[in-house]
Amino acid sequence: MVGSCHSCDSCANNLENYCPKMILTYGSKYLDGTTTYGGYSDIMVADEHFIVRVPDSLPLDGAAPLLCAGITTYSPLRYFGLDKPGMHVGVVGLGGLGHVAVKFAKAMGVKVTVISTSPNKKEEAIEHLHADSFLVSRDQDQMQAALGSMDGIIDTVSAIHPLLPLIGLLKSHGKLVMVGAPEKPLELPVFPLLMGRKIVGGSCIGGMKETQEMIDFAAKHNITADIEVIPIDYLNTAMERLVKADVRYRFVIDIGNTLKSSS
Amino acid sequence: MVGSCHSCDSCANNLENYCPKMILTYGSKYLDGTTTYGGYSDIMVADEHFIVRVPDSLPLDGAAPLLCAGITTYSPLRYFGLDKPGMHVGVVGLGGLGHVAVKFAKAMGVKVTVISTSPNKKEEAIEHLHADSFLVSRDQDQMQAALGSMDGIIDTVSAIHPLLPLIGLLKSHGKLVMVGAPEKPLELPVFPLLMGRKIVGGSCIGGMKETQEMIDFAAKHNITADIEVIPIDYLNTAMERLVKADVRYRFVIDIGNTLKSSS
Repeated sequence: MVGSCHSCDSCANNLENYCPKMILTYGSKYLDGTTTYGGYSDIMVADEHFIVRVPDSLPLDGAAPLLCAGITTYSPLRYFGLDKPGMHVGVVGLGGLGHVAVKFAKAMGVKVTVISTSPNKKEEAIEHLHADSFLVSRDQDQMQAALGSMDGIIDTVSAIHPLLPLIGLLKSHGKLVMVGAPEKPLELPVFPLLMGRKIVGGSCIGGMKETQEMIDFAAKHNITADIEVIPIDYLNTAMERLVKADVRYRFVIDIGNTLKSSS
Repeated sequence: MVGSCHSCDSCANNLENYCPKMILTYGSKYLDGTTTYGGYSDIMVADEHFIVRVPDSLPLDGAAPLLCAGITTYSPLRYFGLDKPGMHVGVVGLGGLGHVAVKFAKAMGVKVTVISTSPNKKEEAIEHLHADSFLVSRDQDQMQAALGSMDGIIDTVSAIHPLLPLIGLLKSHGKLVMVGAPEKPLELPVFPLLMGRKIVGGSCIGGMKETQEMIDFAAKHNITADIEVIPIDYLNTAMERLVKADVRYRFVIDIGNTLKSSS
């Protein structure tokens, strides 16, 4: 985000991301009516309140996606109290959001289980991202064996998917946090929520103070997003590959070296 | 409830109500295999751990339903932090659970709005139960005017109903707590949860320690359920009236004076 009202309750509490007048970095209208172009811009003049200092030890390209995927997963881990060493947290979906969720949760000392429909992501999850375990969500036996084992789940999937099996994985008082946004409503079984005082919540990026805290935490624990750096003229191909989920895990456009200004 | 395992995490934390082996007062199997008959029993031998002391100042008949409806609404008000003076809490449905939810929330110093499909419950809500305001959930203008105004909502409705309008009534970080259990899943719109970091949670009665706390709080604030005391031979008629929601708000059977033992 690049703007907010600075006067509402959310702004007063360092939660500019929940300000009703929050302005998104890309595809919004700025105060002067111009469209925001975010990471596609060659230059940008920004309100200093919305600037994050990237510590020198972090590479800019690997840090860039943390300003969405990083804070989107770091903030709910903190807010919903899923950041205590020894806790067990599930991460649903191993994509742009999911892979940094695993990194942050591990750095917090949490036991992490990746939950995915794709058995072939197991090696990546365990070997590369150091998740503690892996569940194939379509495998009834695996899911049954993990019933009631998790303090919380970060659900990064934006496709329609069933919540009941995920709620079942939670311990009593466990928390299922949605950070992906399916377009249509999901089915919410109420009785399983009641019987374990469980919750389903949502979370959307984070405030500027917490975003700085996240990037400092990332620097301290050497966390970056796994990226593929591309030149601007590769963009349309990148978009086609995005639709096929063919990227591990975020494209970063090298604007400085490849965008020729039209002026 | 009349029993639990006494050895699980829930039991160790005074949350016997979330023990996987919890035994319900009515219609469960007790440890010795006998069926529990709850309030239909003439006599009952009970584990002292599951006994609540009713303070002398509370009438036994008006206090009896608090051991379900009272704790079911008191516990989530406390657990979800909706018990702070000056907060604004909605109560959906004005029945057995809803009317005591209003009483407890008011006694906590909370501003209470009753939300109902029935405009004719307004007078009852405001005049008799001292709710601060009343919303007809089918009235778009009223609902629109109340958008983003509530810290939390206790939803006592067990029929299928839309959650989207209720989520809309919540402030950012607001909490919608289900204490009624619709048989079928409800539609959960995810995007509105994300955009305000809202949660939908569930809650089921309360532990024994909190149940005693609830009944002591009720005594201190002169809270009882509104009841109609009936003799045991009125039971079948009472059941028919229950189906039609024709009771304000709980039947209490006067077992002692009206049940003739078959022995």
